Amino acid sequence: MTRRLDEIVARFGGDLRGDGSIAVTGLATLETATAGQLSFLANTKYRGQLATTRAAAVILSAEMADQCPVAAIVTPQPYLYFAHLSQWLAEGPPPPAGIHPSAVVESAIPASVSVGPQVWIAADVELGENTVIGAQCRIGAGVRIGADCRIYPGVTVYAGCRIGCRAIIHSGAVIGADGFGFARAPDGTWVKIAQTGCVVIGDDVEIGANTTIDRGALEDTIIGDGVKLDNQIQVAHNVQIGAHTAIAGCVGIAGSATIGAGCTLGGAAMILGHLTLADGVNVSSGTLVGKSITMPGSYTGTVPFMAHDDWLKNFSRLRHLDAMADKIRALEKRLAELEKNR
Amino acid sequence: MTRRLDEIVARFGGDLRGDGSIAVTGLATLETATAGQLSFLANTKYRGQLATTRAAAVILSAEMADQCPVAAIVTPQPYLYFAHLSQWLAEGPPPPAGIHPSAVVESAIPASVSVGPQVWIAADVELGENTVIGAQCRIGAGVRIGADCRIYPGVTVYAGCRIGCRAIIHSGAVIGADGFGFARAPDGTWVKIAQTGCVVIGDDVEIGANTTIDRGALEDTIIGDGVKLDNQIQVAHNVQIGAHTAIAGCVGIAGSATIGAGCTLGGAAMILGHLTLADGVNVSSGTLVGKSITMPGSYTGTVPFMAHDDWLKNFSRLRHLDAMADKIRALEKRLAELEKNR
Amino acid sequence: MTRRLDEIVARFGGDLRGDGSIAVTGLATLETATAGQLSFLANTKYRGQLATTRAAAVILSAEMADQCPVAAIVTPQPYLYFAHLSQWLAEGPPPPAGIHPSAVVESAIPASVSVGPQVWIAADVELGENTVIGAQCRIGAGVRIGADCRIYPGVTVYAGCRIGCRAIIHSGAVIGADGFGFARAPDGTWVKIAQTGCVVIGDDVEIGANTTIDRGALEDTIIGDGVKLDNQIQVAHNVQIGAHTAIAGCVGIAGSATIGAGCTLGGAAMILGHLTLADGVNVSSGTLVGKSITMPGSYTGTVPFMAHDDWLKNFSRLRHLDAMADKIRALEKRLAELEKNR
Repeated sequence: MTRRLDEIVARFGGDLRGDGSIAVTGLATLETATAGQLSFLANTKYRGQLATTRAAAVILSAEMADQCPVAAIVTPQPYLYFAHLSQWLAEGPPPPAGIHPSAVVESAIPASVSVGPQVWIAADVELGENTVIGAQCRIGAGVRIGADCRIYPGVTVYAGCRIGCRAIIHSGAVIGADGFGFARAPDGTWVKIAQTGCVVIGDDVEIGANTTIDRGALEDTIIGDGVKLDNQIQVAHNVQIGAHTAIAGCVGIAGSATIGAGCTLGGAAMILGHLTLADGVNVSSGTLVGKSITMPGSYTGTVPFMAHDDWLKNFSRLRHLDAMADKIRALEKRLAELEKNR
Repeated sequence: MTRRLDEIVARFGGDLRGDGSIAVTGLATLETATAGQLSFLANTKYRGQLATTRAAAVILSAEMADQCPVAAIVTPQPYLYFAHLSQWLAEGPPPPAGIHPSAVVESAIPASVSVGPQVWIAADVELGENTVIGAQCRIGAGVRIGADCRIYPGVTVYAGCRIGCRAIIHSGAVIGADGFGFARAPDGTWVKIAQTGCVVIGDDVEIGANTTIDRGALEDTIIGDGVKLDNQIQVAHNVQIGAHTAIAGCVGIAGSATIGAGCTLGGAAMILGHLTLADGVNVSSGTLVGKSITMPGSYTGTVPFMAHDDWLKNFSRLRHLDAMADKIRALEKRLAELEKNR
Repeated sequence: MTRRLDEIVARFGGDLRGDGSIAVTGLATLETATAGQLSFLANTKYRGQLATTRAAAVILSAEMADQCPVAAIVTPQPYLYFAHLSQWLAEGPPPPAGIHPSAVVESAIPASVSVGPQVWIAADVELGENTVIGAQCRIGAGVRIGADCRIYPGVTVYAGCRIGCRAIIHSGAVIGADGFGFARAPDGTWVKIAQTGCVVIGDDVEIGANTTIDRGALEDTIIGDGVKLDNQIQVAHNVQIGAHTAIAGCVGIAGSATIGAGCTLGGAAMILGHLTLADGVNVSSGTLVGKSITMPGSYTGTVPFMAHDDWLKNFSRLRHLDAMADKIRALEKRLAELEKNR
């Protein structure tokens, strides 16, 4: 789809510098943009690429505008501008409304909803207007999904779970499987605790491919408005995630943890159970959080990698840190003795 | 479903203190229970909530019974009691027996089995009585699944795998995909080793959403009776897991590892290949097990997280642990020299 | 299927020692092989099992041949020989060509292709000759898949992605879901960046169960020829993986990372975003790679596990490493002072 710069500015704001009749066909980085593409400069690290870009125009901030050799859209937040624009340019026709004849639908569905091939929708399901259910999704009994959602093929939603409006859920996500709850009997066997809570998901939530969110044991697992979950995340039963928290791939959150609002969790971070993270906490990738965090800020706990041979030398010392600390203390005492008698 | 306390005690035992005609509609925690709900006190940490609970009755141990302001069911193991009871109260009508018309079933199936919409069951499959196969499961040729199993929608079982009785398998689980086995050719390419073993799963096993268990290379991958696997676990080829071992989410077990019976592995623990863990080993969350463990007990290997700036200061030292140890040794030598000549 | 040793040697080479008319029915390890099975000795660690093996014949190297009590196929690379042979012996009849009547296929498909039950193939899809699409796969619009591929049941390929020839893709894999890209607005909400790139996968790639490979933001995510990915791997948007790199289960690769050719990443390794790994890099299991690696070699960054009580003693010291280093420096200074004044 082709758009003129003046059309873009009319819709998204910003100051246009240059010829508004220039038409752009899509977005690209400064380095790879070709004639007819629109680029952006959001990180000053890439400022050097501005002089040589072949983009038709660049979205950038006022400080950079003078250095721009081509047309420009000047805005205080170029990356945010780019984000909004990217959605508009990528918009295609929605899947056709209606129910594919191969779907098995046991509930009444609004006419504006699109139900793809081989979908299964159980009884007592309520879907909002314009929601798209991709091929082969499985929607359990009593599920509620709001309006304008996009559920990609092969998503599973267990019975009774509730999802807000404008959700995007990617393939292979499983919402509402049983939490992992057992009592151990004296003979060592595990007796299952029925998981009778649900999963309740707010508005504007995105859930990545193969991410799993378990239903609560007695109460619900709760995902706040605007939460963004990447792929292959595990959210255990009775977890609560505050609004607008973003979580990268491969993160695990153990049972009954409460994550604040506006947090970020880096990839493969692991949050242990029954902890509370305050609002505005940033956990670094690969960090295991083993106790609650009460103050906003950035937290890290990882080890540096090194050449394997160096690692062998250094990491064997980890087993002897306590002994090293003892030796230092003994040295301090002996030295003080010597100094006294000098 | 409403149950009277005397009905519950008649079925599950325990000493009833109070009015047996009290009816309860469900279970809740001490803190959240409302009139008509039954609660439990299994962890003395929550003892303080007993005085103010609004529960109709509480399951607890004899030591706590005197402090209970409402009716009580007294039992030596309140949590275990609660587990058994939770299942009974959650029981709903089973899915209807029979094969949904949209399913593709190439094997003979007992009349008591429930096969959901759009299921595919290949040839030579044997299913036990009363087993439920949820929507869109894919059951490969020659698979055996025992009686009274509950296979949730979207589970894949590859050809030839065997599952015992009373299994619960959650959506997105994949049983029997190829193990990851290759020989490296001199030119750097990888030549696949055919994975001709199967997966053999005992009775009373639960498998979480999106968990994967690979088939063996030459022999089988074996999951013992009563094993409980949470979500997003990876079990590689030729692994053996002993009976009644419980494994939390995001754990990885590399090829040919043997895990004993009655073990627990915390979330995101990682067990390297060709290792053996004794019976009764507990591995902490996030711990990488790089050699065999011959004695029961608890094992840990994680780093504490800290504020990011503190981490920068402390963790850069990890690259110099060996040098620190050398410095301490040199100091000891010089100090001994001084002390001798004092 | 039964094969004579002389048939095997005629096909795969190697020196036959013993009776070529011996027939073998399958492969097994030295320890478990029974009469009629063919075994191999690839690792000298297992040399001791040679004397007592009950295998009908053994594949081994010239140095070991004299110690072999049964017939032998002598080859310089027994494991590679075994790999090739394993494929041949495991070959079964391919699934029948043609489209299962329950499939929904909106594209023209070659007659040699096998499309299983309840598959959905959208419009404008091109499939190569002899490719097998397993039950309930979902193939989005405009996808290209080469010849001789084996796509197991329940795989999802999003619109526009391209896969080369001879791919093997296991159940639950999701190719081409949206990358995790958002701009943060001043009010803390996240604005989605449309992910308009695709996933481009070379020839001879294997992808494990429940592995996810995200589509690029502006450009494509690229998986080179001969790459082997195990289960539950997460490959983020705009990642590039060089040819013949092998990656074990549970690995995460963050956005825009570039992995060289011929690398190996151990299980649960984690590669942060925007990094570059040179060709021939081996990353150990559980290692977090937080900066680029420019030289081939082996790299590690993990902590040793220990009995939980020992861990408590030693790992609390990690928070004080910086203080320990300061103390050592202070000791050195005081000691030098004493030595000077001796």
